[in-house]
Amino acid sequence: GTGADNDLYINQAIVFIEDAIQYRSINHRVDSKSLWLYRWYYSRTCQWILSLTITIILALAFIEKPSSLTITSDVRYRLPAWNPPCGLTESIELLCFLVFIVDVSVKSYLVGWEEFWKNKWLMAYILTLIVSLSDWIVSLSFLCTEGVRIRRILRPFFLLQNSSMMKKTLKSINSTLPEMASVVLLLAVHLSLFTMFAMLLFARTKDGQQDKEWVGYFRNLPDSLTSLLVLLTTANNPDVMIPAYSKNRAYSIFFILFTVLGNLFLMNLLTAIIYNQFRGYLLKSVQSSLFRRRLGIRAAFEVLSSLKETPANTQQSYVSIGALLRVLQKVEMDSRCKQAIMRSLKMCSCDQLSAAQFQKLFEELDKDAIKQHPPSPEYQSHFMQKMQFAFGHPYFGYLGNVVALANIVSICVVLVMDADKQPSERDDFFLGAINCFFILYYLLEMLLKILAMGLKRYLSYPSNRFDGLLTVILLVLEIATFAVYGFPHPGWRPEFMGLLSLWDMVRLVNMLIVFRFLRIIPNMKFMALVVTTLLDLVKNLRAFAGILVVVFYAFAITGIMLFEGAVTPLGNIRLKFIFIVLFQTFFYIKEVVVLYFKEKWRFVACSDRFQAEVICCLFYLLSVNLICRWAKIYFVAWWLISSVIWVNLFVALLLENFIHKWDRRCHREPLSDIEYQRTVELMFRDVLEEPTEEELMEKLHEHPHLQLCR
Amino acid sequence: GTGADNDLYINQAIVFIEDAIQYRSINHRVDSKSLWLYRWYYSRTCQWILSLTITIILALAFIEKPSSLTITSDVRYRLPAWNPPCGLTESIELLCFLVFIVDVSVKSYLVGWEEFWKNKWLMAYILTLIVSLSDWIVSLSFLCTEGVRIRRILRPFFLLQNSSMMKKTLKSINSTLPEMASVVLLLAVHLSLFTMFAMLLFARTKDGQQDKEWVGYFRNLPDSLTSLLVLLTTANNPDVMIPAYSKNRAYSIFFILFTVLGNLFLMNLLTAIIYNQFRGYLLKSVQSSLFRRRLGIRAAFEVLSSLKETPANTQQSYVSIGALLRVLQKVEMDSRCKQAIMRSLKMCSCDQLSAAQFQKLFEELDKDAIKQHPPSPEYQSHFMQKMQFAFGHPYFGYLGNVVALANIVSICVVLVMDADKQPSERDDFFLGAINCFFILYYLLEMLLKILAMGLKRYLSYPSNRFDGLLTVILLVLEIATFAVYGFPHPGWRPEFMGLLSLWDMVRLVNMLIVFRFLRIIPNMKFMALVVTTLLDLVKNLRAFAGILVVVFYAFAITGIMLFEGAVTPLGNIRLKFIFIVLFQTFFYIKEVVVLYFKEKWRFVACSDRFQAEVICCLFYLLSVNLICRWAKIYFVAWWLISSVIWVNLFVALLLENFIHKWDRRCHREPLSDIEYQRTVELMFRDVLEEPTEEELMEKLHEHPHLQLCR
Repeated sequence: GTGADNDLYINQAIVFIEDAIQYRSINHRVDSKSLWLYRWYYSRTCQWILSLTITIILALAFIEKPSSLTITSDVRYRLPAWNPPCGLTESIELLCFLVFIVDVSVKSYLVGWEEFWKNKWLMAYILTLIVSLSDWIVSLSFLCTEGVRIRRILRPFFLLQNSSMMKKTLKSINSTLPEMASVVLLLAVHLSLFTMFAMLLFARTKDGQQDKEWVGYFRNLPDSLTSLLVLLTTANNPDVMIPAYSKNRAYSIFFILFTVLGNLFLMNLLTAIIYNQFRGYLLKSVQSSLFRRRLGIRAAFEVLSSLKETPANTQQSYVSIGALLRVLQKVEMDSRCKQAIMRSLKMCSCDQLSAAQFQKLFEELDKDAIKQHPPSPEYQSHFMQKMQFAFGHPYFGYLGNVVALANIVSICVVLVMDADKQPSERDDFFLGAINCFFILYYLLEMLLKILAMGLKRYLSYPSNRFDGLLTVILLVLEIATFAVYGFPHPGWRPEFMGLLSLWDMVRLVNMLIVFRFLRIIPNMKFMALVVTTLLDLVKNLRAFAGILVVVFYAFAITGIMLFEGAVTPLGNIRLKFIFIVLFQTFFYIKEVVVLYFKEKWRFVACSDRFQAEVICCLFYLLSVNLICRWAKIYFVAWWLISSVIWVNLFVALLLENFIHKWDRRCHREPLSDIEYQRTVELMFRDVLEEPTEEELMEKLHEHPHLQLCR
Repeated sequence: GTGADNDLYINQAIVFIEDAIQYRSINHRVDSKSLWLYRWYYSRTCQWILSLTITIILALAFIEKPSSLTITSDVRYRLPAWNPPCGLTESIELLCFLVFIVDVSVKSYLVGWEEFWKNKWLMAYILTLIVSLSDWIVSLSFLCTEGVRIRRILRPFFLLQNSSMMKKTLKSINSTLPEMASVVLLLAVHLSLFTMFAMLLFARTKDGQQDKEWVGYFRNLPDSLTSLLVLLTTANNPDVMIPAYSKNRAYSIFFILFTVLGNLFLMNLLTAIIYNQFRGYLLKSVQSSLFRRRLGIRAAFEVLSSLKETPANTQQSYVSIGALLRVLQKVEMDSRCKQAIMRSLKMCSCDQLSAAQFQKLFEELDKDAIKQHPPSPEYQSHFMQKMQFAFGHPYFGYLGNVVALANIVSICVVLVMDADKQPSERDDFFLGAINCFFILYYLLEMLLKILAMGLKRYLSYPSNRFDGLLTVILLVLEIATFAVYGFPHPGWRPEFMGLLSLWDMVRLVNMLIVFRFLRIIPNMKFMALVVTTLLDLVKNLRAFAGILVVVFYAFAITGIMLFEGAVTPLGNIRLKFIFIVLFQTFFYIKEVVVLYFKEKWRFVACSDRFQAEVICCLFYLLSVNLICRWAKIYFVAWWLISSVIWVNLFVALLLENFIHKWDRRCHREPLSDIEYQRTVELMFRDVLEEPTEEELMEKLHEHPHLQLCR
């Protein structure tokens, strides 16, 4: 019937608009039941359950068998770790798998049979689930005693497939791979040619006795290759060169050439190539998001225009305002946007909308959320007006910064003076008195500002909120101190009382004061620019960070499986340990390699410092000859992926972001009282291309489930 | 008289055209005598003498008093270094100063009195000379026993002021300084805030005993600051964190935050900022060169058009072809360009040239030197033609590459097999026979190629020249080997004979073969791109490298003066040592700092390894308490300048170059037989803007010495 048809069209329009808001693809089934399922699947509850399941299955690694749930890290005091009984983690896993099975079925059903076969991610999802379930069954049938659990390595895939941003980023990294591979190949050629040179140069001579020291570095092919690979990370530099240098100074030319070519040129070339490939990445991704939004809106327009209420004989299609209002009431969207659209709809004089008008209406979604600060209170009294002028003036804020700086300096001076004193000689009076004075000033400043600006306006600035919160906390701490330990006086060194010692209280107050000093950031133009760039970067970086987490997790689990039983002296190898080693390796590949190549250190590290668990374990790990070669390959792979490729991707993104920001900074006119809440999309608004009518209609006609009348 | 006037105009035109060719400024005196002086000053001989003088005065440091002219670096065998008698280096210095005085006088005279006062470089030059001479007089009056010689630090200035490229680069670095200073300030704020946090977090508690290990890192303000500064170079990472981590795992958050913010964000931000500032640097510099060239040509046109030969009553000014021909005969320029211009002049039908035509004539200077390879010989015989086809085909070249690869692989296999053998067990027969075969093939390949291409065409390709030269050298070596040691046979292990042992001969041959393998580079597209980018970079980098040398020299001399007498156990501190330390520091700042902070190492380094002079000396240097603080500041400054700023400048230049190159690669059509000799100017030809007529004329009218008629 016509009524049912109309309801269907309305529902379709609702879903399409929601798709547009969330930048989702509109290529899904559009019959009534599927639409209901679709809205249910993308409801907050469902998505929240899915995210929770992914978190749980990833977190399982921390309590699974080689678990590391102990309180202290010191092996001397540590109790044996708790191992969950067989079946506990496995049943949680099964629950997660069930959720994933529901997820994949719903997703597959919604995209439709034909689309399913084209969608590699869905296929991989199903395959992962099948492998995981089989592994799970094997695991249970061995009563959890089997060694290899493939499904643990596969887990990060669930995180990967659930984020469209990460999938997009992965695709874009994928397209950079050929160029990256070329540079890595070049590095390999560079390494191997120099290795051959080194082996010929530093070969054991038939008549020489002086070659004792070279033996360690260039004895055979794998050793030479490793030595030079490590030289590429500059970790073993002076050591590897000195034996040769001490025989003949000219040998240093070899090492200098190798380092300049490899480190200065080829490594930086990698940065250049990755940056070059990623230059358009952000723009392209934002452009495709825009296309999805416009497409969703257009699809909504098309289905609404097929409603029987409108006269179909006209050349152009129209949408009645009534239908749109009905749709808008049911759409889930930001209330500010909804109100703005409703308002413009009411202001519209006509009662039908063309496609262009329809599209224009929804441009509200792309707009900046302009934040207007509430006005200051208006005082009648002349004195109050003067007060308001004085304390609302920026100079008052600057004075506050100066006082905060003075506070920092005074703390610094006290710290320097106390540095050489014994703890028992120290006197807390001076710091106590000073801080008391400064905190009173901060309180006064806050109150005067509230007086001048009114509470609402005061709270509408983020810097004031930060300031006020810290001031209140400081005040509470100070009052608590006085309540417990009394007022400061010379020789004020009370004994330990209550929850924290006076000494800890004073330190906490000092730290908060140092932290509060960060309020100067918005006052310094360049700092503000840098900080906003960094914040933007963090937003754009989520997908990259996600991929790093995925790789990190897979590496950690592989490491556990590879090196299981290798670290017997300190107990079994545990997940946390591998995590720490990888984390260390990511930042400090050099140190790990240095340690590895200075064998003497093994003894120092493991006898003297019992608590230097990380390094110690690494040594047992690497010193077990059986797995040494695997360890080498494992760490080189991790170094390449994390330290070389990921860091370069990060640099490329930072360059991209910063240069855009910098260019914009120069073009934009300064706006006094209005703060923009910038999103990545808005950053590029000037350069984005609007999709044309033809592109949109072509894409709509390709829709696998939607049959448009025309 | 008119004749004298005409001669003057002709001479002016000659000098202006030469200025245009060399991209020199035309703002100099233009009377007859000055023009003669100008041409004399810029003649090859004069410039060569000037360069030689600069080289000599810089090289003096190597033989001056704390000299390091010994043959071996091993302190056990080294004789005391030769010290030149007082007055020897000083008289050489005086000669150099005299040359510089002549240089500065001529330069000052040529720019004219008014310009002189505006030219800061000339003023600085004169000031430097005055200071140096006074210092020299003081030095002689103390009979060379005075400690401080300021003039030695000032020496690199002479190098700096003589290169216009370096001056330009310095100006451009100078304009980046505010932004760089901002980031360095940000780093400083980051460091100092975290230092305060660290001192508060890791303060000696009144009740604790566990703080023994922190004492080393966070005892007082300078120590904390140093610890965190070193953490910024990631040198002391695991060590500085482990005491805190072993007490409470949460402390690691502090270190992770510090590293992520400082290392990952702020340090890379510096790269972004420097790149952003340098993005237009190359283009701008090329643009200003172009302007100078056009201006010189235009000036030549203007003076030639004032010649009395041409009718002055016309509206537009013209230059007669005869006058231009007279000028061209006397101008010193590339003969290819000269001929091309002469040819176009003769083809010109008119006998007068307008400004535009004149300018167009000299565009030959900007053009690529198109290199046409000579044709192959044409053989009559059918057989020879077939041979020519077969051996001139690219596949024959590929075959040669495959054979070279096979040779490399065979050498590699022999090296791997011989690695574990004792030198006395080794047999040279296998390698000798194999190399003999391969070298015969290389010879055959070269001869066949020459047969197919003809000698001239063969030699016109750089890759063939490289190939042929190495083949000839290999052949000579092989023949020499056979002549001395006879033909290889099983058990071929002859005793030492002649200049080199057989073993050394074989190694040399092998190394040359590995080196010859580089001929594959032009055959791999990506490699060729990378290599040409690197070569371009080297060209553009000369100015940067020069500035690095200047800074390096100044630092080294300062270091010697600062640390004189500090390294008593190993004899006096010498220039070479400081050079090596700085060079090491440039590439391996981390290691130096690691060593510095692991005090135990001092003993290991200085007792066990006598020849590890570099590190050893560094230790004496840094362990002398008196100069320790100076050493810290000195090395931090050097680290900032070389490792942070210079390396980032380098990365910026590399990015700029590579991205331009990459973009061009995609646009350009492949040209088969024509090779361009690219210069930096040509790389940007598509984007350069031609200066307008008005700009040129305005600049010409501002000329301080040239009075134009109109």
